[in-house]
Amino acid sequence: MRYEEFTIEGRNAVLEAFRAKKTIDKLFVLDGCQDGPIRSITREARKQDTIINYVSKERLNQLSETGNHQGVIAYAAAYEYADIEDMFRLAEEKGEAPFIFFLDGIEDPHNLGAIIRTANLVGAHGVVIPKRRAVGLTATVAKTSAGALHYTPVAKVTNLANTMEELKKKGMWFVCADMGGETMYNLNLTGPIGMVVGNEGEGVSRLVKETCDMVASIPMKGDIDSLNASVATGVLAYEILRQRLSK
Amino acid sequence: MRYEEFTIEGRNAVLEAFRAKKTIDKLFVLDGCQDGPIRSITREARKQDTIINYVSKERLNQLSETGNHQGVIAYAAAYEYADIEDMFRLAEEKGEAPFIFFLDGIEDPHNLGAIIRTANLVGAHGVVIPKRRAVGLTATVAKTSAGALHYTPVAKVTNLANTMEELKKKGMWFVCADMGGETMYNLNLTGPIGMVVGNEGEGVSRLVKETCDMVASIPMKGDIDSLNASVATGVLAYEILRQRLSK
Repeated sequence: MRYEEFTIEGRNAVLEAFRAKKTIDKLFVLDGCQDGPIRSITREARKQDTIINYVSKERLNQLSETGNHQGVIAYAAAYEYADIEDMFRLAEEKGEAPFIFFLDGIEDPHNLGAIIRTANLVGAHGVVIPKRRAVGLTATVAKTSAGALHYTPVAKVTNLANTMEELKKKGMWFVCADMGGETMYNLNLTGPIGMVVGNEGEGVSRLVKETCDMVASIPMKGDIDSLNASVATGVLAYEILRQRLSK
Repeated sequence: MRYEEFTIEGRNAVLEAFRAKKTIDKLFVLDGCQDGPIRSITREARKQDTIINYVSKERLNQLSETGNHQGVIAYAAAYEYADIEDMFRLAEEKGEAPFIFFLDGIEDPHNLGAIIRTANLVGAHGVVIPKRRAVGLTATVAKTSAGALHYTPVAKVTNLANTMEELKKKGMWFVCADMGGETMYNLNLTGPIGMVVGNEGEGVSRLVKETCDMVASIPMKGDIDSLNASVATGVLAYEILRQRLSK
């Protein structure tokens, strides 16, 4: 288990953090800002005895890591990485077969945030990221996840392929998105599944790909090579959900 | 028809521009940079008699609009907005029912770029954007589209709802992605279709939504409200493609 300090920026992200009962150490709000979303945030902050600091725009810009604070920044105590066991427990509580995202080296924080957001909405039980050569849970990731980071557990592992091998012993199947695979509509993607997504530029690394049971390809009817990484993740994840729902 | 000047930045985007036979006025390359991708670009540039300027990193940073030029920036003559007629022609040439994206006020250039990229790969015949309250075709959009902007026509219209009304007379059906609609799997999304996507924060505007024949909802199994706009677009667009492929 590891800890990383982080700031939460923007109205939706901060409000979601309060609603998810996260520990907010300090809240910085633009002085004189009194609109609806800000009032909801300060009401939540008072309920939870959070210290509220009314500050100037210059001060907020200084504190901001994303450059897009929308008049509000919260300092969260820490973000706690989860264990993969937490994800299995979550699946069991919901009475569902485990459905976990494995991200093989996503580098862009906007992509990671959007993918965690997708994981939450598609009903996945967690997201696994590697310790090296990948973006971690920064303020930008928290903000782009639109609050999903407070609900969907994220685990960090040393070696993705080793972790996958261990989980295969527990009955999980792994599918990766890559070119040259079988069209995703023709694969059986139900059951306990790990969905592997590659790096933005290089795709899935060789060892990780070899560890997968199936390679799924998304139909490409156009002139260029590949979808944006978070879009591709969404498309494959929703195909998995479609198959799970129609079972 | 309108023109907007723009720069193309980054290796993939510049190489795609050459391969798509776009008119590149000038090419700026980082002095001393000799790796494979850069050599492919300069080879293409020479073939097309493009002026190559070898410049310092400082000069490139100065010219860059995206802050992420990867050692190469091209000045394209101009980007030409298409007409909707061009999209119908493209569909006819391919012997396909028209499939066009309508974006109701996308503000983030990364989202617009990713959506144009998706439009290309899902086999859509074009993307329609409104003139006001929306991002246009900037350098960031061109770069995030990963070359798709050179293949997929983009048209700009004054009033989205009026344009949709006119196209309905030509036999097009419109579906928008919004909450409270029928689950997308249960709708018939084949035939000549316009897919409407709303603004990142506010969704689809009232008038545009009322002009739609169907409201499709993407299943949401999580705790938060909505997917990232470009992910939602990808998920619905691929459901349309799935239905078209299985017909």
